[in-house]
Amino acid sequence: MLKSFTIIAVAAVGIGVGTNYYLQRVPDMPKLDLNRWWGDGDKPNQEDETIRPFKIIFNDTIIDDLKMRLRNRRPYTRPLEGMQSEYGMNTIYLEKLLKYWQDEYRFKERADLLNRFPHYKTRVQGLDIHYIRVKPEAKGKRVLPMLLMHGWPSSSKEFDKIIPMLTTPRDEYDFIFEVIAVDLPGFGFSEGTNKPGLNPVQIGIIMRNLMKRLGFNKFYIQAGDWGSQAATHMCTVFPDEILGFHTNMPLSSRPISNVKYILGSLFSSLIVESKHRHRMYPLKDLLTYLVRESGYFHLQATKPDTIGAAIADTPAGMAAYIFEKIGICTNRKQLHTQHGGLGNIDLDDLLDTATILWANERITTSVRLYAEAFAWSEVFIVQDIPTKVPTAAINFLHEVVYQPDWILRDKFINLVHSTTLDFGGHFAAMQTPKELVDDIFMSTVEFLKFHARNK
Amino acid sequence: MLKSFTIIAVAAVGIGVGTNYYLQRVPDMPKLDLNRWWGDGDKPNQEDETIRPFKIIFNDTIIDDLKMRLRNRRPYTRPLEGMQSEYGMNTIYLEKLLKYWQDEYRFKERADLLNRFPHYKTRVQGLDIHYIRVKPEAKGKRVLPMLLMHGWPSSSKEFDKIIPMLTTPRDEYDFIFEVIAVDLPGFGFSEGTNKPGLNPVQIGIIMRNLMKRLGFNKFYIQAGDWGSQAATHMCTVFPDEILGFHTNMPLSSRPISNVKYILGSLFSSLIVESKHRHRMYPLKDLLTYLVRESGYFHLQATKPDTIGAAIADTPAGMAAYIFEKIGICTNRKQLHTQHGGLGNIDLDDLLDTATILWANERITTSVRLYAEAFAWSEVFIVQDIPTKVPTAAINFLHEVVYQPDWILRDKFINLVHSTTLDFGGHFAAMQTPKELVDDIFMSTVEFLKFHARNK
Repeated sequence: MLKSFTIIAVAAVGIGVGTNYYLQRVPDMPKLDLNRWWGDGDKPNQEDETIRPFKIIFNDTIIDDLKMRLRNRRPYTRPLEGMQSEYGMNTIYLEKLLKYWQDEYRFKERADLLNRFPHYKTRVQGLDIHYIRVKPEAKGKRVLPMLLMHGWPSSSKEFDKIIPMLTTPRDEYDFIFEVIAVDLPGFGFSEGTNKPGLNPVQIGIIMRNLMKRLGFNKFYIQAGDWGSQAATHMCTVFPDEILGFHTNMPLSSRPISNVKYILGSLFSSLIVESKHRHRMYPLKDLLTYLVRESGYFHLQATKPDTIGAAIADTPAGMAAYIFEKIGICTNRKQLHTQHGGLGNIDLDDLLDTATILWANERITTSVRLYAEAFAWSEVFIVQDIPTKVPTAAINFLHEVVYQPDWILRDKFINLVHSTTLDFGGHFAAMQTPKELVDDIFMSTVEFLKFHARNK
Repeated sequence: MLKSFTIIAVAAVGIGVGTNYYLQRVPDMPKLDLNRWWGDGDKPNQEDETIRPFKIIFNDTIIDDLKMRLRNRRPYTRPLEGMQSEYGMNTIYLEKLLKYWQDEYRFKERADLLNRFPHYKTRVQGLDIHYIRVKPEAKGKRVLPMLLMHGWPSSSKEFDKIIPMLTTPRDEYDFIFEVIAVDLPGFGFSEGTNKPGLNPVQIGIIMRNLMKRLGFNKFYIQAGDWGSQAATHMCTVFPDEILGFHTNMPLSSRPISNVKYILGSLFSSLIVESKHRHRMYPLKDLLTYLVRESGYFHLQATKPDTIGAAIADTPAGMAAYIFEKIGICTNRKQLHTQHGGLGNIDLDDLLDTATILWANERITTSVRLYAEAFAWSEVFIVQDIPTKVPTAAINFLHEVVYQPDWILRDKFINLVHSTTLDFGGHFAAMQTPKELVDDIFMSTVEFLKFHARNK
């Protein structure tokens, strides 16, 4: 018996070591064309590289048409008796929200509010890219360039609360930020491509080329959601150009991290502080939540053009579709409320996002990102390569997935700062802007220390 | 070494026998209220049991509003360069289809075509249920009552080609069918419930009570898709009332069947004829197909009210959403065509389905079925109980899942007839009506033989 135990034990250790070795392998960086053309047709000999000032305008034609469609909607099927948001968007709450959009939302005032920032457009790799660029009052402080990258279904609008905070000097810090808040291609006011293949790695390349265009050869990034995925790839492909990466959706997508996460459920007390354990385990709870909330993800990753066509001509329908998701991502425990989490976000902020998406007809181009992210092997290769870029992670309570630092370090070797809060959700810049900005300042101290140590 | 091998072998056999015993266990039938009330509020003392003639009318208000919405749609995002239906609904094809709906589809003529059958409505358990009832020219033949049950996103309309075929006597058979083609609750012209819990088991009870109302204590069923799921439950809950079950989506959802299906991939040559093997294995191909095509299913099973609200006011969007699915279910190999499989169905048939769904506002109530099917333990219990009802399976080439007879027999002990065709798809009654009806006649001979043997 002892002998067979020994054989099994040796075999188990052997398999474990072998698997670990296999998973720890780092693939070679794929060849990436840093000037790939995403515009229509073939790349021209000469590209327009001008930077053009831009102003957000919701004109009367767009507003009148939108209001007409909202007024003209059909009565909704009511929620099932006794149900709040358990079957998805609560149509009683939706009606209130749409009535506000139709009758009370001040389109021009909201556009003006966004226009207080300087907006620009410039063509990068064939696509017209929109961004906000705000120079701080330096007051003798060191100015650090920081790129802000949003996710779905957002745009640079998501950052309108934190831009002033990031560009206002603080006594306790000797640096301040110059902010570039960009719309990802196919989102907000940025053009989408008509060519397949614009995955998060390729988006990262466009973002880096945009920053070069603006004169920044090295810069910091703050990002969440898909912005964070693309930024993670930028840290991997351009490790010497990204000075520091602050993410509110920290994620190592390396296979070894997933294996650790799953095996960790067997001895969770060893791998995660007891006060944070509920964010990871029991695995069954996480999987139930992920299955329950990922239907939209599944659809967008496989049939983006279907859902795009389905809600292309209905602002009410588009709002229902995107708002249900925004709500639950702010607080996954609020499924049993009528607002389903939407009460955590200012109504005008929600409607800014919906109006921008609607006015620019960006539903199809934005959801295609989900399909592109899974269709090309370069994404899986790049995400399996660790990066040395100093990184800071902030973990809000209701973020989709929580990975403890020792898992994040599979990808982010130099995780120099980490914060875990017992509140907040996925749309941090809208939901908890002050806490996000405080953490960006604190993290940047660590980024600077890191560079001082590694000069 | 021999000793440890023996230990492992004995353990393996023990685990296998134990698992098999566990999986073969048949659960007890759950207690089911056969008169559960699905209408608004509480069950009244007296129920209206009248049977009312009904006529399909697409009135001018509905038609004009629908055409206005179709005319008023916004331009679609075009497919990515070089793509057909790989990213979902091809919007170039969609535009042609919508133009036909708007300009050429003859609403009243199509309604009249359906009205050539006698239509009725009657209230069952609080819900107004619509059905077509056609008595055959008996010509001295034995008349067998047959209930036809459709799936999503269909209605009794799906059967308009096969109803005349089933009610027309054939020389070679001494029986003929009286057909009852029903709209499932929440589909077509049948009312949906406002109460949670109307899962396929409960739908089966309503269908059985409808047939009792019509004077049929025993009857045959033909069904596909969700209709087949509900009918399978009827065979389980009312084994003495269903005389025979013909299904074009034969499925044993018993856990043991799933285990067999998966383990079968290890020795597929033993369990499925080589000419049919490609329908099951390699498992990777099936899983890839299922993941690729089940986004809508995932969304509907988790957030039905979201997708319902999303496409409630857009006929074009609703058409895009349902047609992409209908297309690929007719032929899963046509992803690389512009029509994505829709070319296999008559355009008017497609638009009948869309018009009925639109005019009756049945999107939300119909997609809720996906959520209800997974939310209640009684479904999982009932589906794990085998049925003795004589059953016939017809396997069209492009049906979603193919199970060979030895797996189907886990559920359908008396599988008396089985046909496997190398063409056809999921919407058999519209796509291959003649082959479907031929098989129903042939199968019924076997049902009758079965009853003769088991008198």
